[in-house]
Amino acid sequence: MSITTDYAVTGMTCGHCVTAVTEELSTLDEVTGVTVDLVSGGVSTVHVSSDAALDQSAVRAAVDEAGYRLADV
Amino acid sequence: MSITTDYAVTGMTCGHCVTAVTEELSTLDEVTGVTVDLVSGGVSTVHVSSDAALDQSAVRAAVDEAGYRLADV
Repeated sequence: MSITTDYAVTGMTCGHCVTAVTEELSTLDEVTGVTVDLVSGGVSTVHVSSDAALDQSAVRAAVDEAGYRLADV
Repeated sequence: MSITTDYAVTGMTCGHCVTAVTEELSTLDEVTGVTVDLVSGGVSTVHVSSDAALDQSAVRAAVDEAGYRLADV
């Protein structure tokens, strides 16, 4: 099973931010891939591939840990 | 002897960028300290302390290596 879920994340500005978010989300067991459409200083879209449904609170915690915030949609 | 020289650097946006520039400049033998006034997406000021005069081309190369540019003043 492969699922892709999109998340809106604020506060990312550069490639380092992309790396930080990607690394933190990749620590979640279910996550198989992360790609980011960076909107510097705006709302970036983070595409997360996983082999099982993701727990939103775990995703939020990972994004927080990286130093950014899930936008409330 | 302690010298502080200020450099204008463009392209820095976040704390990761500050870390990258600081680490790269710190590899120069003469450099004893680096602080950055970050202007996200604008012209940031990088204060470099050193125990001898710095070679501008070495500073430029270090900033380039970190992925940013010395602004021509």
